Amino acid sequence: MARTPATTDQPAELRSRCPVACSLDVVGDRWTLLVIRDLFAGMSRFGELMASPEHIPTNILAERLKRLERAGLIDSTPYSEHPVRVDYRLTERGRALAPVVDAFAVWGLEQFPGTRRRSARSADSA
Amino acid sequence: MARTPATTDQPAELRSRCPVACSLDVVGDRWTLLVIRDLFAGMSRFGELMASPEHIPTNILAERLKRLERAGLIDSTPYSEHPVRVDYRLTERGRALAPVVDAFAVWGLEQFPGTRRRSARSADSA
Repeated sequence: MARTPATTDQPAELRSRCPVACSLDVVGDRWTLLVIRDLFAGMSRFGELMASPEHIPTNILAERLKRLERAGLIDSTPYSEHPVRVDYRLTERGRALAPVVDAFAVWGLEQFPGTRRRSARSADSA
Repeated sequence: MARTPATTDQPAELRSRCPVACSLDVVGDRWTLLVIRDLFAGMSRFGELMASPEHIPTNILAERLKRLERAGLIDSTPYSEHPVRVDYRLTERGRALAPVVDAFAVWGLEQFPGTRRRSARSADSA
């Protein structure tokens, strides 16, 4: 797992030439942007991401991390070989999603009473 | 179908107190923000929304419109009684998603070569 992927996946077939549609094909689901939120907050390990309050299922987290790495939004660096363990980190392409995470946070704070941003190391300070 | 819903759905049980997670429970999928994009672009009728280049399946469009109306993001006004036909329009709550749609558009334009914003009546001019 190289720090910089040699190639990055583009969706095999674009639904349209709309940049919003293409973005949603990569991060348009209930979980992916939460993983990205947590990486912005400084988390880097599978167990840390699992411990978030939304209780992401293990198989979904594993699949999303693979997909994000294939898409060039995160990279991974081994920190243990036996067993194999890796640190995940946002790439520049992934960090460019900060305004998306922030826009959702701003909208959500307005719309859902009782919500709050979780961490001082949030997207807007990353 | 009143112009202003008497009540708006909140997710029955919040996954967490994170505003991003709560937002994704409402609009976190591959299609919903495309419907909202099209309403920002001035479309208001089922057939117009169906004609978008992403070819949203009929049943998904119908379900998303119902969900968006329950969530108070759109409202509907009849323009024909036989058969029943309605115009859909973003509410203030829905229009507050403009920065989310814009952030996706900006990211997508950077990340996916060949994409372009479709309409002069885009979210940022709404």
